[in-house]
Amino acid sequence: MPTMTAAQRRTAAKQEYDAFLADCPSRQLLGRISDKWVGLTIAALHERGTLRYSELSRRIAGVSQKMLTQTLRSLERDGLVSRTITPTVPVTVEYALTPLGESLQEVMLGIKSWAETHMGEVHAARETYDAR
Amino acid sequence: MPTMTAAQRRTAAKQEYDAFLADCPSRQLLGRISDKWVGLTIAALHERGTLRYSELSRRIAGVSQKMLTQTLRSLERDGLVSRTITPTVPVTVEYALTPLGESLQEVMLGIKSWAETHMGEVHAARETYDAR
Repeated sequence: MPTMTAAQRRTAAKQEYDAFLADCPSRQLLGRISDKWVGLTIAALHERGTLRYSELSRRIAGVSQKMLTQTLRSLERDGLVSRTITPTVPVTVEYALTPLGESLQEVMLGIKSWAETHMGEVHAARETYDAR
Repeated sequence: MPTMTAAQRRTAAKQEYDAFLADCPSRQLLGRISDKWVGLTIAALHERGTLRYSELSRRIAGVSQKMLTQTLRSLERDGLVSRTITPTVPVTVEYALTPLGESLQEVMLGIKSWAETHMGEVHAARETYDAR
């Protein structure tokens, strides 16, 4: 088989996965990352660098302990967040984005900014819709 | 009050909404758009231009009728999708992105592509995590 160029390898890698297909693993991954708690957790870690659980919980106002714990565990398992344990008394546990997590953060940030920037237009559209 | 420049107005508009705050309307909007069905619906409409309900339902394999109907209604109410009814027999209903929907599509596409491109790395991370 002839050697592929880097561009051909990228194309081949992309074609392997298609989130439009119900059984493609990327559909399940898309579902996991399309989540406001994932977006906010990743944004907070990007903004502050390294955070302890309690700091994250304060930054993301209103997140429940169950939801934050679950989100962090799934982000760690997917290789997006690293967890560092320092044997102080009591133990210090710190979270940070991995390089893979940083790459996701770049695209997720766009969604958070979009929501903040276009809120006025969406409000106006809802008023028109509800008045019909 | 002195007149604001366009850049100052953009900054002021951005500062009005902050999705880190539990009660900010942009938090609820972020939750609504951070959804795999929203991402897939918007991607399909962008790709094909205008689609009927049945065409959308085929393109997004595995979506339930209830979920697709709900997603389209919420996208229409938020001003992201337009619904055009043509009085044929039977009636033709077609969906398309509005300019606001196109602006969201640009950022959402990044997430779908990210999931498709980085699936291999996430798989590897999960294997390492599960083997610990």
